[in-house]
Amino acid sequence: MGLMNETHDPALRSWVASAHAAGTDFPLQNLPFASFRRQGSNEAFRGGVAIGDQILDLALAARTGVFTGEAALALQAGAEERLNALMALGPKAWSALRLALSRALREGAAEQTRLADCLVPQAVAEYGVPARIGDYTDFYTSVHHATNIGRQFRPDNPLLPNYKWIPIGYHGRASSIGVSGQAFHRPRGQTLAAGATQPSLEPCQRLDIELELGIFVGTGNPLGEPVPVTEAEDHVFGLCLLNDWSARDIQAWEYQPLGPFLSKNFATTLSPWIVTLEALAPYRVPFERPADDPQPLPYLDSEANRRQGSLDIQLQVALQTPKMRDAGQAGATICRTSYRHAYWTVAQMVAHHTVNGCNLQPGDLFGSGTLSGPTLDQAGALIELTTGGKNPLSLPNGERRTWLEDGDSVVIRGWCEKAGAARIGFGECVGTVLPARS
Amino acid sequence: MGLMNETHDPALRSWVASAHAAGTDFPLQNLPFASFRRQGSNEAFRGGVAIGDQILDLALAARTGVFTGEAALALQAGAEERLNALMALGPKAWSALRLALSRALREGAAEQTRLADCLVPQAVAEYGVPARIGDYTDFYTSVHHATNIGRQFRPDNPLLPNYKWIPIGYHGRASSIGVSGQAFHRPRGQTLAAGATQPSLEPCQRLDIELELGIFVGTGNPLGEPVPVTEAEDHVFGLCLLNDWSARDIQAWEYQPLGPFLSKNFATTLSPWIVTLEALAPYRVPFERPADDPQPLPYLDSEANRRQGSLDIQLQVALQTPKMRDAGQAGATICRTSYRHAYWTVAQMVAHHTVNGCNLQPGDLFGSGTLSGPTLDQAGALIELTTGGKNPLSLPNGERRTWLEDGDSVVIRGWCEKAGAARIGFGECVGTVLPARS
Repeated sequence: MGLMNETHDPALRSWVASAHAAGTDFPLQNLPFASFRRQGSNEAFRGGVAIGDQILDLALAARTGVFTGEAALALQAGAEERLNALMALGPKAWSALRLALSRALREGAAEQTRLADCLVPQAVAEYGVPARIGDYTDFYTSVHHATNIGRQFRPDNPLLPNYKWIPIGYHGRASSIGVSGQAFHRPRGQTLAAGATQPSLEPCQRLDIELELGIFVGTGNPLGEPVPVTEAEDHVFGLCLLNDWSARDIQAWEYQPLGPFLSKNFATTLSPWIVTLEALAPYRVPFERPADDPQPLPYLDSEANRRQGSLDIQLQVALQTPKMRDAGQAGATICRTSYRHAYWTVAQMVAHHTVNGCNLQPGDLFGSGTLSGPTLDQAGALIELTTGGKNPLSLPNGERRTWLEDGDSVVIRGWCEKAGAARIGFGECVGTVLPARS
Repeated sequence: MGLMNETHDPALRSWVASAHAAGTDFPLQNLPFASFRRQGSNEAFRGGVAIGDQILDLALAARTGVFTGEAALALQAGAEERLNALMALGPKAWSALRLALSRALREGAAEQTRLADCLVPQAVAEYGVPARIGDYTDFYTSVHHATNIGRQFRPDNPLLPNYKWIPIGYHGRASSIGVSGQAFHRPRGQTLAAGATQPSLEPCQRLDIELELGIFVGTGNPLGEPVPVTEAEDHVFGLCLLNDWSARDIQAWEYQPLGPFLSKNFATTLSPWIVTLEALAPYRVPFERPADDPQPLPYLDSEANRRQGSLDIQLQVALQTPKMRDAGQAGATICRTSYRHAYWTVAQMVAHHTVNGCNLQPGDLFGSGTLSGPTLDQAGALIELTTGGKNPLSLPNGERRTWLEDGDSVVIRGWCEKAGAARIGFGECVGTVLPARS
């Protein structure tokens, strides 16, 4: 998996003209998957593939009988309401479908006549969570985030002894995961105010974001059978953007000794589009670790992981306040970083998660953990950007923000670009804070 | 919910004779639910209700048209492969089905002719996990367990400051939950040996049990809408036995700062039968808390919770070693306690879990946390019973155990009994440790 092939050729052109628009996230070299239907309709959700500003409706396409063999089987699986069946088919099937789609959407393809009737404009679509997520695991793979957070609690010893040995992760809540556009009420919870001797139930006063990537499991593994690191990526369908909304005051009071719970499980927002590992192949980079850091234990180490285990995905967080929205202004960028800075790779997450025999299932989701980069302007959470709330952010319109306020929207974007390869993007992951319920 | 009615009358007799056998867990006053099929068959799993040593097959019963109205709708829902649809119907439907089943299974019932053909002996049944579990949350509701564990790490200050204010919980893994009879390989994982400076990947050397109850959510709540404590029990379908197998050496190295992960998610075993809250009504007892302890915040407090929020469920753990099995000996009892000692009630768990707006869904599972009682022989985990591995247990056949060894089986049993009420039981929750895979 992950090898370059004809689908990555930057010279490829599609008969869908918008696939060549400047700055599009969805050229012919991307072909990400979502679950969608027309806005406000009672249509069933079904799988779709983004091309330019259109969606190729996989349910309609499957009915045309456009493909044969393995690609046809994968297309049929992708036509279902959620992508679990396609995810379960495995990398050979995903690759066959990608190649067939790439060829059929190219300029001059014989399939154009049939597939032109299977396009739905993204402008009229609404999206669902792309898979039935059986289990959601949130990791903690940025050493910069772990250090920034640890420094606030333990200035002399910010990083715990296990961090450089274990891809730390914990179980999250699947039921409250939503898709871009999610609006949620500010959570209430128990907090212990500074100086108070007793907690009280209050609306969260320290509402935060966490810039993450989501990683969808494709094929699973049977209970009791670990996935070797050398095979780990065969179990990964693709990546999306993820915002792990966090209530820091609730978290501080509740998290000892068993970890975050109500501070995280009120909402988690995903981008609708899943970009496959194969589409990301041109943006692989070496997994680098400082030479005086511990090197991974054998079950977390492989030649392929060292050579190309990391992904150079550009990430950006923008904050749009109600005042900006009223003035017709886009959000202000508050963070820009890359996934390449992560301390642990996707393959290492899979290998670690299963080393005890834990079974993964198609559609399971991992969060990468907050993807803070090496400098403070690359931090992916307000708790870092404001140094624990001590240094409010100054926004370009003169407003200030320490934590999220009611009406604030947060927009995460992600993309890959470099010379000699087609730019591909993830679209947007947008979420909005509503006032606490009375 | 939870009021006594005619279904609890201890004088009721069933036309299924084994419902009156001495010591049966399943008299007419119990009527717990499971998902089952005949052993070794290719039959679909479907809902069943235990009566004596038989199972009333709800799929067969539904086809006879034996009930009308709400009970018939509930029976039809219970006929599905898993119990989620029945769970979603809510307490009025559960109660209607229970009353109809109670009447139809009584001596002299007109329904006997039709239902006699719908019985399957428990001796030929195999069970499935009774619901599709969307999310699994494990709580920590025994103050005695929290204190015993805390004392091993912090002798002077065993209980963390949040414990008496928050029903502490964290998210667990749903995919590796199995049903009684589950056998699992001893997990491997990273551990830091005493005195070592670097961790290594080893088979777990400190494999433990946790005696818990499982609590199945019935009706859910929409995202953003908390369930008030006064309505919390309307969202609870029933309880089962649960063994939260735990790898203590893996846990000690991995759990900071985000909580237990691979130390818990390799296997969790449930008893097949879910005893409804209504069946448990005769065994409600007051929720008692020492007067000098903090009293619950208003969102965790109600008159009904104080008056009858706790449940007096007797619990027992037996350990059967391979030597005992070879000698035809039953397991040795290593713990006996009651659920009444829990510091937080079922209603408080539901109210706390949703106070931030987190949505519960039908079939979600809570674990109670290890249900250790006030004295050490009532402790529900080996880490407590052996004081952290320092004092091995002496078993009646002369063997000793500090932690679980390969081939050991653990049997949890639960039941309720008192004068003036019918004894009801949970059946068994059995699990067996297989050697680590090489």
